Amino acid sequence: MGRLSTLFAPERVAVIGATDSDGSVGRAITSNLLASFDGDVVAVNPYKDEALGLRCYDTIGDVDDPGSVDVAVVVVPPNAAVQAIREAGQAGVQNVVVITAGFGETGSEGMSREQKLKEAAREYDLNLVGPNSLGVMSTPDGLNATFGNEMANEGDISFMSQSGAFVTAVLDWAAERDVGFKDIVSLGNKAILDEGDFVAEWGEDPQTEVILGYLEDIADGTKFIRTAREVTQDTPIVLVKSGRTDAGASAAASHTGAMAGSERAYEAGLEQAGTLRVESVQELFDYAQILSGQPLPDGDEIAIVTNAGGPGVMTTDAVGDSDLSLAEFEDGTLDRLRESMPDEANIYNPVDIIGDAPAKRFELALETVLADDNVSMAVVVACPTAVLSFEELAEVIVEKQAAHETPVATTLMGGKSVGAGQEVLSEAGIPNYFDPARAVDSLDALRDYRQIQAREYESPASFDVDRDRAEEILRTAARRDTNRLGVEAMELLDAYGIPTPQGAVTRSPTEAEEVAQDIGDDVVMKIVSPDILHKSDIGGVEVGVPPEEVRSTYEDLVVRARNYQSDATVLGSRSRRWSTSSPAPRPSSG
Amino acid sequence: MGRLSTLFAPERVAVIGATDSDGSVGRAITSNLLASFDGDVVAVNPYKDEALGLRCYDTIGDVDDPGSVDVAVVVVPPNAAVQAIREAGQAGVQNVVVITAGFGETGSEGMSREQKLKEAAREYDLNLVGPNSLGVMSTPDGLNATFGNEMANEGDISFMSQSGAFVTAVLDWAAERDVGFKDIVSLGNKAILDEGDFVAEWGEDPQTEVILGYLEDIADGTKFIRTAREVTQDTPIVLVKSGRTDAGASAAASHTGAMAGSERAYEAGLEQAGTLRVESVQELFDYAQILSGQPLPDGDEIAIVTNAGGPGVMTTDAVGDSDLSLAEFEDGTLDRLRESMPDEANIYNPVDIIGDAPAKRFELALETVLADDNVSMAVVVACPTAVLSFEELAEVIVEKQAAHETPVATTLMGGKSVGAGQEVLSEAGIPNYFDPARAVDSLDALRDYRQIQAREYESPASFDVDRDRAEEILRTAARRDTNRLGVEAMELLDAYGIPTPQGAVTRSPTEAEEVAQDIGDDVVMKIVSPDILHKSDIGGVEVGVPPEEVRSTYEDLVVRARNYQSDATVLGSRSRRWSTSSPAPRPSSG
Repeated sequence: MGRLSTLFAPERVAVIGATDSDGSVGRAITSNLLASFDGDVVAVNPYKDEALGLRCYDTIGDVDDPGSVDVAVVVVPPNAAVQAIREAGQAGVQNVVVITAGFGETGSEGMSREQKLKEAAREYDLNLVGPNSLGVMSTPDGLNATFGNEMANEGDISFMSQSGAFVTAVLDWAAERDVGFKDIVSLGNKAILDEGDFVAEWGEDPQTEVILGYLEDIADGTKFIRTAREVTQDTPIVLVKSGRTDAGASAAASHTGAMAGSERAYEAGLEQAGTLRVESVQELFDYAQILSGQPLPDGDEIAIVTNAGGPGVMTTDAVGDSDLSLAEFEDGTLDRLRESMPDEANIYNPVDIIGDAPAKRFELALETVLADDNVSMAVVVACPTAVLSFEELAEVIVEKQAAHETPVATTLMGGKSVGAGQEVLSEAGIPNYFDPARAVDSLDALRDYRQIQAREYESPASFDVDRDRAEEILRTAARRDTNRLGVEAMELLDAYGIPTPQGAVTRSPTEAEEVAQDIGDDVVMKIVSPDILHKSDIGGVEVGVPPEEVRSTYEDLVVRARNYQSDATVLGSRSRRWSTSSPAPRPSSG
Repeated sequence: MGRLSTLFAPERVAVIGATDSDGSVGRAITSNLLASFDGDVVAVNPYKDEALGLRCYDTIGDVDDPGSVDVAVVVVPPNAAVQAIREAGQAGVQNVVVITAGFGETGSEGMSREQKLKEAAREYDLNLVGPNSLGVMSTPDGLNATFGNEMANEGDISFMSQSGAFVTAVLDWAAERDVGFKDIVSLGNKAILDEGDFVAEWGEDPQTEVILGYLEDIADGTKFIRTAREVTQDTPIVLVKSGRTDAGASAAASHTGAMAGSERAYEAGLEQAGTLRVESVQELFDYAQILSGQPLPDGDEIAIVTNAGGPGVMTTDAVGDSDLSLAEFEDGTLDRLRESMPDEANIYNPVDIIGDAPAKRFELALETVLADDNVSMAVVVACPTAVLSFEELAEVIVEKQAAHETPVATTLMGGKSVGAGQEVLSEAGIPNYFDPARAVDSLDALRDYRQIQAREYESPASFDVDRDRAEEILRTAARRDTNRLGVEAMELLDAYGIPTPQGAVTRSPTEAEEVAQDIGDDVVMKIVSPDILHKSDIGGVEVGVPPEEVRSTYEDLVVRARNYQSDATVLGSRSRRWSTSSPAPRPSSG
């Protein structure tokens, strides 16, 4: 488990700002915690003696053994929040969830408050969620430290969201379905903990099978990519990154102040990070469901088994739209299908076992195609008929899927007659959709994730960087308060170990002759001056100068520079030979 | 009402092949008819005295006043079907629904049987549905002449499907939802009536608001385009045309024998026909719902009103993906929002009235934006909160939508708390989706349909075709039983009024000289022979022949043709001048 393990699996939680005032956020949090949390809940509120049956302490420091409090949930007004956090830190609490709003999302006063909050958190090395967060949930211990209306069902999806409202919507929606969660976090303003931290945490959490996220920006791209690449080797990450379009990006800026950044950069970065990026809420949960319920395919080939020609064609079109391909069956498979199916059946893929097929015929067909080495996954598409029980069919599918450990998705194409079958499938982790396009799209996501897992990342080329020298160059240039010089750029490249042409800045004809002699070839000579940016325009660059002309060229260049009313008397000379750091004479800084 | 009005609104229906045998299709049809049909049902079966309480007549001719039977449903075995249809025709029945399978879909015997069925139907000028059809339904009179398990609810969508199984799936699915239908037809093999006929019928039916179709091919493209263009001026047509992809097209060929034809041709044709083509079942019904429930927008500008920033951003992204654009509000609108909304609200589009908004605040915001002339449609996106009743919100939305007659779609973003609100919206014809992308996509479909309605079609260029001559050319070529000649293609083009180069087929050097003189320019000379297809390979083409060399060239070409062991002695000569029919000498047919 990672460093946030006590955030999601605390034994003792304090609510700083606990209250029983009707309709208050403090009351909602306290009562949600009391409703289902297996651990201990303590209340802090200097203005109350008691709240919802809990004794209220004046400060967190007053709680018995305050260091044993794993998580402090802060719901005090904004102007009291920083002090509360500081006190939690002093008391030895490691994790703080700041529900309080009125920080960076509200203008300059809020921003400076958020800055102070960051400083306090850093001082005490706090794992801080928020501010402006709906809170956190973790189902194994019944932890509901949010002010939402719903507690999540237990499951293996962990979910982070930069929108608290979206968390409440998802919980309300999931309550009606068989969608369960391990942990949920509302990221809020991400003052300290961001998406990269949670990805890292869930990557080490054996109870998290899939990571879902709704993000409007990514706080630290480099950290996120590095972490996600590692995590996604074992745990798929599915993300909605909104603000994709120009209109969406400006809406995001107004919502969370997210500088959405270039969509292209996000697209490339999320792809490099090995995340599965989706565009709609429906896809987010479709992908989560199949990734948590089904094994990965060993190839791209899909078999379709159906009792209905038309829906079979629609399914085939969906395969045509995807990165999957229709499996070509082995001869043995075709022979077995020919023997066991009616004459009117189509034994080639898509396999149409026709309208009078009972569950038993589906079983035979499914067993046959799943045993085929050319089949990496299957979709079963069934329309309601008088002779087919969807519940029996679901049991058959569950059995065959498990026996072959091959991913399967289904389309029991109906409404009221689907219920019981759907439940059987859902318990076994097999997703079912009315629309075959969604079934195929979900299987396609499994394929994408398999591709991501199979990736080998090249470690980027690393340079032996002389950081001190680079810093010195930049500091000097900054002090000078004039335009940067080309030679400084060269020095900087050199400090980073990137080859540059050999050369030096010289201050007299004699010095120039010496450097040219060192180079031992024709040289390039240029005026070096912060006042002359477009050197060629005034004849300030001479190329191919032979050693014997270095002196006179130097003198010519000085004249040209002075004609331009510059103080510059310094000339550089460089050959076309490339050198790395050491052998080249160090240019003197201009 | 159109020519099929008695098919969908009959007063008397006969089942030819009515029976009470358990599990039979004949029993299913008879009992479905008896279950809900307002009219009279008569049974025909020479092997039974009675079926399900109905007296069985030996033939339809034996029924009292058989000419008053509006529809005969045929469920006899395939080898008896043609005779049954013939008898129905003789008895004066106008509409026949052939449920019986075993025709064109089953190989050569079936095809010849289907040919006989067509001849019988044409002889008696029958409106024939099928064969191989699930049947027809029409809700106003409770007509269920199908062997499915479900009767549709009454509504204003009429639906045709080339897949019977898809009809059963849709009925089962719709039974769970508020989706109602006017008429449904399972097209079967389309021996006589096809998609064009039903589009025409529903175009004249005041009770049909939207036409939906699942098609695998289109029998008569020209008829369909002509009919659909007219119908779609008043009634939108939404189609899944499957077999879009290569894989799907070959699956469709195996299913219904549909020669799917070129996807590009279909795409162009369906676009020209003014249909809304969709790719998934979900879109098919999403579009149907909004087209039947909401008015058309007067522009492309959409307003978003939400209590939730994140989902507001997602909605804005969906707008960015669509052909819609975010409305820019008038100054007055912004002023009114500024006055009536809290300071933290975002009054620019997307309007974020923040998390503590009750239904009343939605009402104010919605009233304000819908009154703005720059707003052509709106989407309301609401996340569940403690202070918001979805039912109250739904009532507010229904009221404002009706008052402004502006199309609205909604995203009540949740599951269990949505129910009551969803019902209110649904009754008012306002579609609601969990995923805002679907809400926006549906509004976008309204915009597309408005564009279609606004189209002006140019009448295509017409040619003055000499049909008799074209037919004669083809008949002669066919009789000859050899390869077609290039000159024949030229003649055919000429018969269609398409300009061709002046010229003639000649049979002697003298004749060739005469034709060349007529042309009055350098000519092209070619060997004309059914045995010599690749003329250039043997030097059989000479270009730029001046008049004085026509004779010698002719002789050379004859020698070359004979060397190739051909009997050909006929040479053509053509100038590069283009002529239409009359002035050019008629080539003699070779």
